[in-house]
Amino acid sequence: MLYAKCMSKLFLIPNSLVDDDISVIPQYIFDTIKHLRCFMVENDKNARRFLRRLSADFPLQECEFFNLNEHTDEIDAQNFFESVCCNDIGIISEAGCPCVADPGADIVFAAHEKGMEVVPLVGPSSILLAVMASGLGGQNFAFVGYLPKDKGERMRMIKFLEKRSSLEKQTQIFMETPYRNLSLFQEIISACNPNTLLCVAADLTSKDQYIKTQTIQAWKKFQPSIDKKPALFLIKS
Amino acid sequence: MLYAKCMSKLFLIPNSLVDDDISVIPQYIFDTIKHLRCFMVENDKNARRFLRRLSADFPLQECEFFNLNEHTDEIDAQNFFESVCCNDIGIISEAGCPCVADPGADIVFAAHEKGMEVVPLVGPSSILLAVMASGLGGQNFAFVGYLPKDKGERMRMIKFLEKRSSLEKQTQIFMETPYRNLSLFQEIISACNPNTLLCVAADLTSKDQYIKTQTIQAWKKFQPSIDKKPALFLIKS
Repeated sequence: MLYAKCMSKLFLIPNSLVDDDISVIPQYIFDTIKHLRCFMVENDKNARRFLRRLSADFPLQECEFFNLNEHTDEIDAQNFFESVCCNDIGIISEAGCPCVADPGADIVFAAHEKGMEVVPLVGPSSILLAVMASGLGGQNFAFVGYLPKDKGERMRMIKFLEKRSSLEKQTQIFMETPYRNLSLFQEIISACNPNTLLCVAADLTSKDQYIKTQTIQAWKKFQPSIDKKPALFLIKS
Repeated sequence: MLYAKCMSKLFLIPNSLVDDDISVIPQYIFDTIKHLRCFMVENDKNARRFLRRLSADFPLQECEFFNLNEHTDEIDAQNFFESVCCNDIGIISEAGCPCVADPGADIVFAAHEKGMEVVPLVGPSSILLAVMASGLGGQNFAFVGYLPKDKGERMRMIKFLEKRSSLEKQTQIFMETPYRNLSLFQEIISACNPNTLLCVAADLTSKDQYIKTQTIQAWKKFQPSIDKKPALFLIKS
């Protein structure tokens, strides 16, 4: 679809990884977004709370909130822009950075098609923090999201990622629904070679932050306390 | 090598992407690192300037700065820790996040081996900002660093990444030495299919920030002004 060139901006607004702790959000974000009155958000109530944390005076009664979720596709995005053309808009993530393991990319793509300026803002990303802190190397890394649900396929995928990591010297990063963390951990331990390195990174930026890198062999001796906690797994072979 | 368990911490300290503009650095970083007196840095003078920006009173005369570069390997890291055991240490990046397309991973790995706590801090990463702002999807992406220098190999690599992106729905991200940006841009244009999407993201977080996503076909009609500017290239097929 072709749009007329539009001078409005789409701001991508990160949120903290830990409820209500906005100390990790740089001050310039508030200065940059304080004029916005139109937001795309996953959860209206949480977004309002976030804005109120940024500034107790944020004029929430003047703001409009539009629903953004994993089903918001390119067509929804185009319809959305038709209805609010040429106002600056913000996408607020529920946790971490919009569009990274989170919805929003279709909206951003539609904004590019429309000729809007896209302005990504700096904030926490559990993926990036995990790459930094793993010691496994951030010269070459891949985030592959969730592994397949079927156990057989998941085991094959883990072995595939281990092999790719070895062939391409590429750190492989993936995640799981928190209540399945421990079963994924066990599967990694049983699928990978003893010398492969595994980093487990959980509860990032919280006071319970847990980050540990060691060989599969060493991990066999104890299980990390990551049940029901947001976690990332990184392997390097 | 085995170390006695050590209670000291290694802090990974991001720096701004634009010289001296620390507005993108969250305030909690200063609060977290103000007790540090021992730093690993790529450039002593720049690190001092960064700390002075964080706080004009930072007691630089009490601080020690150790050299960190791409040749700092695991052996150097272990020697380093032998000599400064059990003090908290910070790694300050020249720009962006330590260990992500930047040196530091060997030091972090050695810290894990030593049983140190590794604390990654939140700050700007051009890679992550580019993924967010590309609209190409951050559910599955790979950063592969620099492409091969040889022109033939580089063209083959671009085609390989395009194919992988198509087969695995994985956004592929890479970079080039800034003065070679335009020749890489031309190579991408000539190597990729017309419908492949290319995002060019340059000068991120600066006032000249440039981020544009469109098809190769559309890019054929004009060349972005990215000569000698720090830039990332993202493709999705």
